[in-house]
Amino acid sequence: MNNGHIIVVGCGRLGANLANTMYDDGKSVVIIDKDKNSFRKLSASFGGLTVVGDAMEFSVLNDAEINKAGAVISVTNNDNTNIMVAQIAKEMYQINEVVARLYDPERECVYKEFGISTICPAVLSRKEIDKLLEIWDEKEDDEE
Amino acid sequence: MNNGHIIVVGCGRLGANLANTMYDDGKSVVIIDKDKNSFRKLSASFGGLTVVGDAMEFSVLNDAEINKAGAVISVTNNDNTNIMVAQIAKEMYQINEVVARLYDPERECVYKEFGISTICPAVLSRKEIDKLLEIWDEKEDDEE
Repeated sequence: MNNGHIIVVGCGRLGANLANTMYDDGKSVVIIDKDKNSFRKLSASFGGLTVVGDAMEFSVLNDAEINKAGAVISVTNNDNTNIMVAQIAKEMYQINEVVARLYDPERECVYKEFGISTICPAVLSRKEIDKLLEIWDEKEDDEE
Repeated sequence: MNNGHIIVVGCGRLGANLANTMYDDGKSVVIIDKDKNSFRKLSASFGGLTVVGDAMEFSVLNDAEINKAGAVISVTNNDNTNIMVAQIAKEMYQINEVVARLYDPERECVYKEFGISTICPAVLSRKEIDKLLEIWDEKEDDEE
Protein backbone atom coordinates (compact mmCIF):
# COMPACT_ATOMS: atom_id res chain seq x y z
CA MET A 1 0.00 0.00 0.00
CA ASN A 2 1.47 3.31 -0.96
CA ASN A 3 -1.25 5.41 0.61
CA GLY A 4 -1.66 4.96 4.32
CA HIS A 5 -1.64 2.06 6.69
CA ILE A 6 -3.39 -1.30 6.60
CA ILE A 7 -6.07 -2.13 9.15
CA VAL A 8 -6.51 -5.81 9.97
CA VAL A 9 -9.69 -6.67 11.88
CA GLY A 10 -9.59 -9.89 13.91
CA CYS A 11 -6.42 -11.25 15.48
CA GLY A 12 -7.12 -14.93 14.96
CA ARG A 13 -4.71 -17.29 13.25
CA LEU A 14 -5.05 -15.58 9.88
CA GLY A 15 -5.23 -12.00 11.18
CA ALA A 16 -2.11 -12.41 13.30
CA ASN A 17 -0.29 -14.15 10.43
CA LEU A 18 -1.23 -11.29 8.08
CA ALA A 19 -0.28 -8.56 10.53
CA ASN A 20 3.09 -10.19 11.26
CA THR A 21 4.08 -10.71 7.64
CA MET A 22 2.88 -7.30 6.47
CA TYR A 23 4.74 -5.61 9.31
CA ASP A 24 7.89 -7.60 8.48
CA ASP A 25 7.31 -6.49 4.91
CA GLY A 26 7.76 -2.87 5.97
CA LYS A 27 4.10 -1.96 5.96
CA SER A 28 2.35 0.15 8.57
CA VAL A 29 -0.19 -2.10 10.29
CA VAL A 30 -2.99 -1.56 12.82
CA ILE A 31 -4.76 -4.63 14.15
CA ILE A 32 -8.13 -4.56 15.94
CA ASP A 33 -9.62 -7.28 18.13
CA LYS A 34 -12.32 -7.37 20.81
CA ASP A 35 -10.19 -9.54 23.05
CA LYS A 36 -6.80 -8.19 24.05
CA ASN A 37 -5.56 -11.74 24.79
CA SER A 38 -5.73 -12.54 21.10
CA PHE A 39 -2.81 -10.17 20.47
CA ARG A 40 -0.60 -12.83 22.05
CA LYS A 41 -0.67 -14.51 18.65
CA LEU A 42 1.35 -11.62 17.21
CA SER A 43 5.07 -12.28 17.02
CA ALA A 44 7.35 -10.61 19.56
CA SER A 45 8.83 -8.49 16.78
CA PHE A 46 5.46 -7.03 15.74
CA GLY A 47 5.74 -3.26 15.91
CA GLY A 48 2.35 -2.23 14.56
CA LEU A 49 -0.47 -0.73 16.58
CA THR A 50 -3.02 -2.89 18.43
CA VAL A 51 -6.50 -1.56 19.17
CA VAL A 52 -8.89 -3.37 21.56
CA GLY A 53 -12.54 -3.04 20.62
CA ASP A 54 -15.39 -3.87 18.30
CA ALA A 55 -14.52 -2.77 14.76
CA MET A 56 -18.16 -2.03 14.09
CA GLU A 57 -17.95 0.94 16.48
CA PHE A 58 -16.81 4.22 15.02
CA SER A 59 -14.76 5.13 18.08
CA VAL A 60 -12.73 1.97 17.56
CA LEU A 61 -12.26 2.66 13.86
CA ASN A 62 -11.20 6.19 14.75
CA ASP A 63 -8.63 4.83 17.22
CA ALA A 64 -7.30 2.78 14.32
CA GLU A 65 -7.17 6.01 12.25
CA ILE A 66 -9.35 4.59 9.54
CA ASN A 67 -9.43 8.01 7.86
CA LYS A 68 -5.75 7.54 6.98
CA ALA A 69 -6.01 3.85 6.04
CA GLY A 70 -5.15 2.58 2.59
CA ALA A 71 -6.70 -0.84 3.05
CA VAL A 72 -8.98 -2.70 5.45
CA ILE A 73 -8.85 -6.49 5.76
CA SER A 74 -11.54 -8.03 7.93
CA VAL A 75 -10.84 -11.60 8.99
CA THR A 76 -12.77 -12.17 12.23
CA ASN A 77 -14.42 -15.56 12.57
CA ASN A 78 -17.81 -13.98 11.93
CA ASP A 79 -18.92 -13.48 8.32
CA ASN A 80 -21.48 -10.82 9.26
CA THR A 81 -18.91 -8.75 11.14
CA ASN A 82 -16.48 -9.01 8.24
CA ILE A 83 -19.09 -7.84 5.78
CA MET A 84 -20.31 -5.01 8.01
CA VAL A 85 -16.76 -3.75 8.56
CA ALA A 86 -16.01 -4.01 4.85
CA GLN A 87 -19.14 -2.03 3.98
CA ILE A 88 -18.41 0.67 6.56
CA ALA A 89 -14.83 1.00 5.23
CA LYS A 90 -16.03 1.12 1.65
CA GLU A 91 -19.12 3.30 1.92
CA MET A 92 -18.39 5.62 4.84
CA TYR A 93 -14.63 6.01 4.52
CA GLN A 94 -14.28 5.52 0.76
CA ILE A 95 -11.47 3.01 1.17
CA ASN A 96 -10.90 1.28 -2.14
CA GLU A 97 -9.01 -1.69 -0.91
CA VAL A 98 -11.27 -3.79 1.23
CA VAL A 99 -11.15 -7.54 1.79
CA ALA A 100 -13.53 -9.66 3.85
CA ARG A 101 -13.07 -13.29 4.75
CA LEU A 102 -16.21 -15.33 4.28
CA TYR A 103 -16.71 -18.85 5.53
CA ASP A 104 -19.86 -19.10 3.47
CA PRO A 105 -18.88 -18.85 -0.22
CA GLU A 106 -22.52 -18.59 -1.32
CA ARG A 107 -22.58 -14.89 -0.60
CA GLU A 108 -19.38 -14.02 -2.43
CA CYS A 109 -21.02 -12.76 -5.61
CA VAL A 110 -23.20 -10.30 -3.70
CA TYR A 111 -20.20 -8.51 -2.25
CA LYS A 112 -18.31 -8.39 -5.53
CA GLU A 113 -21.05 -6.04 -6.70
CA PHE A 114 -20.26 -3.71 -3.81
CA GLY A 115 -16.58 -3.73 -4.81
CA ILE A 116 -15.61 -5.78 -1.76
CA SER A 117 -13.04 -8.48 -2.38
CA THR A 118 -13.71 -11.68 -0.52
CA ILE A 119 -11.60 -14.68 0.32
CA CYS A 120 -13.00 -18.00 1.35
CA PRO A 121 -10.55 -20.39 3.06
CA ALA A 122 -12.55 -23.54 2.23
CA VAL A 123 -12.64 -22.63 -1.47
CA LEU A 124 -8.91 -21.84 -1.50
CA SER A 125 -8.12 -25.13 0.25
CA ARG A 126 -10.33 -27.08 -2.14
CA LYS A 127 -8.62 -25.53 -5.15
CA GLU A 128 -5.23 -26.40 -3.69
CA ILE A 129 -6.29 -30.02 -3.12
CA ASP A 130 -7.76 -30.16 -6.64
CA LYS A 131 -4.38 -29.03 -7.96
CA LEU A 132 -2.61 -31.81 -6.02
CA LEU A 133 -5.06 -34.44 -7.30
CA GLU A 134 -4.55 -33.23 -10.87
CA ILE A 135 -0.77 -33.48 -10.53
CA TRP A 136 -1.16 -37.02 -9.22
CA ASP A 137 -3.55 -37.97 -12.00
CA GLU A 138 -1.08 -36.72 -14.58
CA LYS A 139 1.72 -38.70 -12.95
CA GLU A 140 -0.41 -41.85 -13.05
CA ASP A 141 -1.19 -41.26 -16.72
CA ASP A 142 2.52 -40.90 -17.45
CA GLU A 143 3.25 -44.16 -15.70
CA GLU A 144 0.67 -46.13 -17.65
CA MET B 1 -7.68 -40.55 -9.24
CA ASN B 2 -7.47 -43.42 -11.65
CA ASN B 3 -6.81 -46.07 -9.04
CA GLY B 4 -9.49 -46.48 -6.44
CA HIS B 5 -11.65 -44.17 -4.42
CA ILE B 6 -10.88 -41.08 -2.40
CA ILE B 7 -11.26 -41.08 1.37
CA VAL B 8 -12.02 -37.73 2.98
CA VAL B 9 -11.60 -37.62 6.76
CA GLY B 10 -13.60 -34.94 8.59
CA CYS B 11 -16.93 -33.65 7.36
CA GLY B 12 -16.50 -30.03 8.38
CA ARG B 13 -16.93 -27.10 6.00
CA LEU B 14 -13.93 -28.07 3.89
CA GLY B 15 -14.43 -31.85 4.04
CA ALA B 16 -18.07 -31.59 2.96
CA ASN B 17 -17.17 -29.11 0.22
CA LEU B 18 -14.45 -31.45 -1.07
CA ALA B 19 -16.64 -34.55 -0.92
CA ASN B 20 -19.49 -32.79 -2.74
CA THR B 21 -17.37 -31.41 -5.56
CA MET B 22 -15.35 -34.58 -6.04
CA TYR B 23 -18.52 -36.66 -6.17
CA ASP B 24 -20.06 -34.23 -8.68
CA ASP B 25 -16.80 -34.59 -10.60
CA GLY B 26 -17.52 -38.29 -11.08
CA LYS B 27 -15.12 -39.56 -8.44
CA SER B 28 -15.82 -42.35 -6.00
CA VAL B 29 -15.81 -40.77 -2.51
CA VAL B 30 -15.95 -42.12 1.04
CA ILE B 31 -16.22 -39.60 3.86
CA ILE B 32 -15.50 -40.41 7.52
CA ASP B 33 -16.55 -38.39 10.57
CA LYS B 34 -16.94 -39.16 14.27
CA ASP B 35 -20.25 -37.31 14.42
CA LYS B 36 -23.00 -38.50 12.10
CA ASN B 37 -24.72 -35.09 12.33
CA SER B 38 -21.84 -33.53 10.44
CA PHE B 39 -22.92 -35.40 7.30
CA ARG B 40 -25.81 -32.93 7.09
CA LYS B 41 -23.32 -30.58 5.47
CA LEU B 42 -23.17 -32.86 2.44
CA SER B 43 -25.42 -31.83 -0.41
CA ALA B 44 -28.62 -33.75 -1.03
CA SER B 45 -27.16 -35.06 -4.29
CA PHE B 46 -24.09 -36.59 -2.60
CA GLY B 47 -24.00 -40.26 -3.52
CA GLY B 48 -20.72 -41.32 -1.92
CA LEU B 49 -20.35 -43.48 1.15
CA THR B 50 -20.43 -42.06 4.70
CA VAL B 51 -18.69 -43.85 7.56
CA VAL B 52 -19.24 -42.86 11.20
CA GLY B 53 -16.20 -43.34 13.41
CA ASP B 54 -12.71 -42.31 14.40
CA ALA B 55 -10.40 -42.54 11.40
CA MET B 56 -7.52 -43.47 13.66
CA GLU B 57 -9.18 -46.85 14.30
CA PHE B 58 -8.39 -49.61 11.84
CA SER B 59 -11.95 -50.96 11.89
CA VAL B 60 -13.16 -47.57 10.67
CA LEU B 61 -10.52 -47.39 7.96
CA ASN B 62 -11.48 -50.90 6.91
CA ASP B 63 -15.14 -49.86 6.69
CA ALA B 64 -13.96 -47.11 4.36
CA GLU B 65 -12.09 -49.78 2.33
CA ILE B 66 -8.78 -48.03 2.72
CA ASN B 67 -7.06 -50.99 1.05
CA LYS B 68 -8.72 -49.97 -2.22
CA ALA B 69 -8.23 -46.22 -1.80
CA GLY B 70 -6.25 -44.14 -4.26
CA ALA B 71 -6.01 -41.07 -2.06
CA VAL B 72 -6.64 -40.02 1.55
CA ILE B 73 -7.37 -36.39 2.44
CA SER B 74 -7.53 -35.64 6.14
CA VAL B 75 -9.19 -32.34 6.99
CA THR B 76 -10.55 -32.67 10.53
CA ASN B 77 -10.15 -29.61 12.74
CA ASN B 78 -7.36 -31.35 14.65
CA ASP B 79 -3.82 -31.17 13.26
CA ASN B 80 -2.66 -34.21 15.24
CA THR B 81 -5.50 -36.36 13.93
CA ASN B 82 -4.80 -35.25 10.37
CA ILE B 83 -1.14 -36.11 10.67
CA MET B 84 -1.80 -39.46 12.36
CA VAL B 85 -4.31 -40.45 9.68
CA ALA B 86 -1.93 -39.33 6.93
CA GLN B 87 0.91 -41.36 8.40
CA ILE B 88 -1.25 -44.47 8.80
CA ALA B 89 -2.42 -44.14 5.18
CA LYS B 90 1.12 -43.62 3.93
CA GLU B 91 3.07 -46.09 6.04
CA MET B 92 0.61 -48.90 6.71
CA TYR B 93 -1.44 -48.85 3.54
CA GLN B 94 1.18 -47.52 1.11
CA ILE B 95 -1.15 -44.89 -0.29
CA ASN B 96 0.88 -42.43 -2.32
CA GLU B 97 -1.59 -39.63 -2.44
CA VAL B 98 -2.06 -38.29 1.04
CA VAL B 99 -2.99 -34.75 2.08
CA ALA B 100 -3.32 -33.37 5.61
CA ARG B 101 -4.71 -30.00 6.56
CA LEU B 102 -2.59 -28.23 9.13
CA TYR B 103 -3.62 -25.11 11.01
CA ASP B 104 -0.09 -24.74 12.29
CA PRO B 105 2.17 -24.10 9.28
CA GLU B 106 5.33 -24.46 11.39
CA ARG B 107 5.21 -28.22 11.09
CA GLU B 108 4.72 -28.36 7.34
CA CYS B 109 8.35 -29.06 6.44
CA VAL B 110 8.49 -32.09 8.75
CA TYR B 111 5.69 -33.83 6.91
CA LYS B 112 7.07 -33.06 3.46
CA GLU B 113 9.94 -35.37 4.40
CA PHE B 114 7.45 -38.18 5.00
CA GLY B 115 5.92 -37.56 1.57
CA ILE B 116 2.75 -36.13 3.06
CA SER B 117 1.34 -33.12 1.26
CA THR B 118 -0.04 -30.48 3.57
CA ILE B 119 -2.34 -27.54 3.06
CA CYS B 120 -2.61 -24.68 5.49
CA PRO B 121 -5.72 -22.48 5.11
CA ALA B 122 -4.16 -19.45 6.84
CA VAL B 123 -1.15 -19.57 4.51
CA LEU B 124 -3.38 -19.93 1.43
CA SER B 125 -5.56 -17.02 2.57
CA ARG B 126 -2.53 -14.86 3.30
CA LYS B 127 -1.11 -15.55 -0.17
CA GLU B 128 -4.44 -14.64 -1.73
CA ILE B 129 -4.60 -11.35 0.22
CA ASP B 130 -0.95 -10.64 -0.71
CA LYS B 131 -1.92 -11.10 -4.35
CA LEU B 132 -4.81 -8.61 -3.95
CA LEU B 133 -2.55 -6.06 -2.25
CA GLU B 134 0.03 -6.42 -5.03
CA ILE B 135 -2.59 -5.85 -7.71
CA TRP B 136 -3.72 -2.72 -5.85
CA ASP B 137 -0.16 -1.48 -5.45
CA GLU B 138 0.44 -1.89 -9.17
CA LYS B 139 -2.75 -0.01 -9.95
CA GLU B 140 -1.65 2.85 -7.67
CA ASP B 141 1.76 2.93 -9.33
CA ASP B 142 0.07 3.16 -12.71
CA GLU B 143 -2.04 6.06 -11.54
CA GLU B 144 0.92 8.08 -10.26
